Amino acid sequence: MEDLVQIKYALDTFYFLVCAVLVMWMACGFAMLEAGLVRTKSTTEILAKNISLFAIASVMYLLVGYYIMYSSDNGILPSLGMLIGDEHSLADVTAGGDEAPYYSSRADFFFQIVFAGACMSIVSGAVAERMKLWAFLGFAVIMTGFIYPIQGSWSWGGGWLSELGYSDYAGSGIVHMAGAAAALAGVLLLGPRSGKYGPGGQINAIPGSNMPLSTLGIFILWMGWFGFNGGSELKISDVESANNVAQVMVNTNLSAAGGLLAAMATARVLFGKTDLTMVLNGALAGLVAITADPLSPSAPGALLIGAVGGVIVVLSVLGLDRLKIDDPAGAISAHGSAGIWGVLAVPLSNAEASLVGQLIGVISIFAWVFVASLLVWGLITVVIGIRISPEEEYLGVDAVECGLEAYPEFTLKK
Amino acid sequence: MEDLVQIKYALDTFYFLVCAVLVMWMACGFAMLEAGLVRTKSTTEILAKNISLFAIASVMYLLVGYYIMYSSDNGILPSLGMLIGDEHSLADVTAGGDEAPYYSSRADFFFQIVFAGACMSIVSGAVAERMKLWAFLGFAVIMTGFIYPIQGSWSWGGGWLSELGYSDYAGSGIVHMAGAAAALAGVLLLGPRSGKYGPGGQINAIPGSNMPLSTLGIFILWMGWFGFNGGSELKISDVESANNVAQVMVNTNLSAAGGLLAAMATARVLFGKTDLTMVLNGALAGLVAITADPLSPSAPGALLIGAVGGVIVVLSVLGLDRLKIDDPAGAISAHGSAGIWGVLAVPLSNAEASLVGQLIGVISIFAWVFVASLLVWGLITVVIGIRISPEEEYLGVDAVECGLEAYPEFTLKK
Amino acid sequence: MEDLVQIKYALDTFYFLVCAVLVMWMACGFAMLEAGLVRTKSTTEILAKNISLFAIASVMYLLVGYYIMYSSDNGILPSLGMLIGDEHSLADVTAGGDEAPYYSSRADFFFQIVFAGACMSIVSGAVAERMKLWAFLGFAVIMTGFIYPIQGSWSWGGGWLSELGYSDYAGSGIVHMAGAAAALAGVLLLGPRSGKYGPGGQINAIPGSNMPLSTLGIFILWMGWFGFNGGSELKISDVESANNVAQVMVNTNLSAAGGLLAAMATARVLFGKTDLTMVLNGALAGLVAITADPLSPSAPGALLIGAVGGVIVVLSVLGLDRLKIDDPAGAISAHGSAGIWGVLAVPLSNAEASLVGQLIGVISIFAWVFVASLLVWGLITVVIGIRISPEEEYLGVDAVECGLEAYPEFTLKK
Repeated sequence: MEDLVQIKYALDTFYFLVCAVLVMWMACGFAMLEAGLVRTKSTTEILAKNISLFAIASVMYLLVGYYIMYSSDNGILPSLGMLIGDEHSLADVTAGGDEAPYYSSRADFFFQIVFAGACMSIVSGAVAERMKLWAFLGFAVIMTGFIYPIQGSWSWGGGWLSELGYSDYAGSGIVHMAGAAAALAGVLLLGPRSGKYGPGGQINAIPGSNMPLSTLGIFILWMGWFGFNGGSELKISDVESANNVAQVMVNTNLSAAGGLLAAMATARVLFGKTDLTMVLNGALAGLVAITADPLSPSAPGALLIGAVGGVIVVLSVLGLDRLKIDDPAGAISAHGSAGIWGVLAVPLSNAEASLVGQLIGVISIFAWVFVASLLVWGLITVVIGIRISPEEEYLGVDAVECGLEAYPEFTLKK
Repeated sequence: MEDLVQIKYALDTFYFLVCAVLVMWMACGFAMLEAGLVRTKSTTEILAKNISLFAIASVMYLLVGYYIMYSSDNGILPSLGMLIGDEHSLADVTAGGDEAPYYSSRADFFFQIVFAGACMSIVSGAVAERMKLWAFLGFAVIMTGFIYPIQGSWSWGGGWLSELGYSDYAGSGIVHMAGAAAALAGVLLLGPRSGKYGPGGQINAIPGSNMPLSTLGIFILWMGWFGFNGGSELKISDVESANNVAQVMVNTNLSAAGGLLAAMATARVLFGKTDLTMVLNGALAGLVAITADPLSPSAPGALLIGAVGGVIVVLSVLGLDRLKIDDPAGAISAHGSAGIWGVLAVPLSNAEASLVGQLIGVISIFAWVFVASLLVWGLITVVIGIRISPEEEYLGVDAVECGLEAYPEFTLKK
Repeated sequence: MEDLVQIKYALDTFYFLVCAVLVMWMACGFAMLEAGLVRTKSTTEILAKNISLFAIASVMYLLVGYYIMYSSDNGILPSLGMLIGDEHSLADVTAGGDEAPYYSSRADFFFQIVFAGACMSIVSGAVAERMKLWAFLGFAVIMTGFIYPIQGSWSWGGGWLSELGYSDYAGSGIVHMAGAAAALAGVLLLGPRSGKYGPGGQINAIPGSNMPLSTLGIFILWMGWFGFNGGSELKISDVESANNVAQVMVNTNLSAAGGLLAAMATARVLFGKTDLTMVLNGALAGLVAITADPLSPSAPGALLIGAVGGVIVVLSVLGLDRLKIDDPAGAISAHGSAGIWGVLAVPLSNAEASLVGQLIGVISIFAWVFVASLLVWGLITVVIGIRISPEEEYLGVDAVECGLEAYPEFTLKK
């Protein structure tokens, strides 16, 4: 019997670790997606941002974030502390009862760290090409150490949002919309890239410089999402849990497919062309939308939830451009607009969730992250400045911040 | 005891899901491989095709394909139906006996969906650079929803081919040669790219535009194949199954290595240079060849099966060019020629297979897929047209179909 | 009870296989990293080298390497033999006792093969852009078949180094420093790329041609390292082992993060810019450094070990350039210097290791690999020549060896 408990513990721990590795891989997906969507003169810097933000998230989540989000004594503003807790002993595991731990606390910590990284990755695409690198890194410290885990403690940490019935399986709101809210605050303070919006309200397209990279990025995200959602079941070692994990992966895949196809069709109708960037954002929107509940919908239901997300992301991208909110990666639309849809769609298939509970969750998470981010971005603006100068922007943030071109031997158009 | 059954169920389900994620990842491998092998003016479109065909495969296989291929009442032409079946209940699982399900039906469905995607991915490289995008997408609907699953039902669905003793472990014939047969039908109707073959029987090389992408694609395929073949054992939770899965992975790796080295040596001898595209196709051919039986051969046997595949793919690429069959990605050679070799090689190490049974399988799968595909491609040609105009081809299919360049800031040679 | 043993065996085998797939994936990481760090005219060749060396490693390790490294009768120079041993039978597994095998010998073989590939991958970046392709491939045969496994037998094979107490969990010394030692020997014989060092002691930067590729490579390596270190626990099926695997992955991640941030800060201070190549090498150095013992340190300890590695790699890159040792990928610094640090840091957190034992290990592995490699490289130089001619180097090794440009349609600067 004790052996049985040990094997279950090992299987659940292994499952967690595999899923965590897949989520870590999403950091690469964001890096590639964003590197393909910016101009060549901003590519090195966005790569530097994406890989270093993952390192920062790992460190900050270790130092304070995990404690804030999951320590038992957290309120709305928990006390800080550097602690990832003790590992479970064999005696605890085999003690039996519902309270006995059934997977490694280190595996949980690893899984949570990569979520913090994913949340921050969302921000970097939206503020691309014009922000000072170290202003971004400074924000990453606060976001992954404090802003993200504080609101995470409200729901996944067992706080007031979870008590109010807010339901968000793997974080359409807690991770994706939160990232988008922080991005929006940054973009509003930062302003659009020079030349993006013309004098007469005209919108100038600034095409992404490398479509294979962006497509690679979406494939990586799609793959990684099987860990993101699949791991959020938190258990696999019995029949019901295993069935649930399988269901979650099937639905995640179908929602991505639905989002892709709907965005492709919408773009074809609106533009007369099969715009690849919209196809990619559609898949991403489908993934984001199903994340709030990939377990309850039937397979065709997941397809539909994704498809609605795919339409929303296209309209949101167009709408933000009308509002002169310049988001080079479409991150606010794919993670924010589709994330809100995902959270609000939960009651359609999950009777335990209510529209009111979901609305309270969306509003409070958005309000907290947006306001806190605005303050932090504002503080950074005052202290070290947030935006590179117009001359530097003309040269490109790569030259200014990294001193390295992304493609030094290739002849580029000016 | 019941707990034990549950853990086995969970382990087998988890194993299935991990393998399915690896196979899904192969869709990215095909996208990168093909994006590197076409010209820059066709890159955006082939990316759009590859990611959207995976979405189409997911939807069509959900709607009809899975039912056609695996429902118990299927004949040669089964009735259609939208059904992925019920998930197994705890009572069913723990009922005991040989009939008790031992892994999630959803996990099986997910694993099968990604196979359908892989089959379709093979087609896209061969018809690259000159086909209308939506003609391709229309074909993908029929291929993944009907043509592929109908022949799949003959063998894996327990139909007449399996009764005749056709043996094809993970689908050298059922998946790879089938994809190549559909591709061949399309290429024959479509004709070669303009400029590929000169007036005097002369063959003009059209080099792939991005070698790192193609190499990335092959590495991804190599990795994903451990799920493709490794998952096709269908079970891992006892000593014999676990040993088999390990044997399958070892052989898969060695066959890829053998194919790579043999193709490299063949190309070196024939051309005097170490042609990277042949090296890559050799690895792919090795992977395809071992897929029909990665379990029975010894490790050196797998190496040899792959090596023969590697020689075949080089000769096949050269031979098809002589016949003016223009396949920009070499897909017909790598999946078709090497796939046939793989199927026919099974009796060499597996006493349960016979050459006659294998030949019947190859011929009937090829005939069905080729003829059905020819009809569908033909119908598409009549209804919406299959090929872009010469002027459009000169501009590039990216401009015409997607309105987006893959590398808009890079100065390109004309 | 027998069933329980079978499930444990299956779980441990599956865990091994998943980790092996992740380590195989590192071969792609090295290929992408190096392809981005060389010039466009050397890109095709480095891709060809990286994918074919993995094939060579697979074949040579099958034919002789595995036997040399792990057969029970090995001494310092064991007899050769082609043998991967028998698979475990059900009877052996369920015999009970401490001697009973608990995972598939084929899975172990697969895991070991990919380690041999990783060791060889390290070499290819350092000798890039000026070595004859087939000289490199010839060295790969000897390195993966003999040089690497002979020293591997000393420690992991249960030989004299393990008896002396040399402790190297997943191979900071046995794999990484060994690869760097072989690379150093090659670089010394080969000399720097033409134009790298000017007449007056001046050092000319030769920037890498594709930063997104290199970043992708580091992300892949980071991901694959969870298999490299995580799999080296060799067992997961009980509470203690599962906890250990989780701890190893957490520490691996934090050490990479520490290395990245420390290298980023060091580069910022030294150069005034956030040099992306140093950021990437910092992450790599962190990964290498923790590999000698990712289990014993606490999470903050792992962060520090990585951080020191990150500082070391920057200084080592600068130092080697002073010595006119031209390593285009920084491989000698990231794997050699950081590897030595990693081995020597083990006693800081692991009381079972001693500084003397670690020093003996480092010195003997380095001496053996360096001297043996020097002899083999020397022999190759005499027999077929090791370096392409200056005219060929001007044209680029791609044109000379592969007859294929990596980016044929892109207009390149001269």
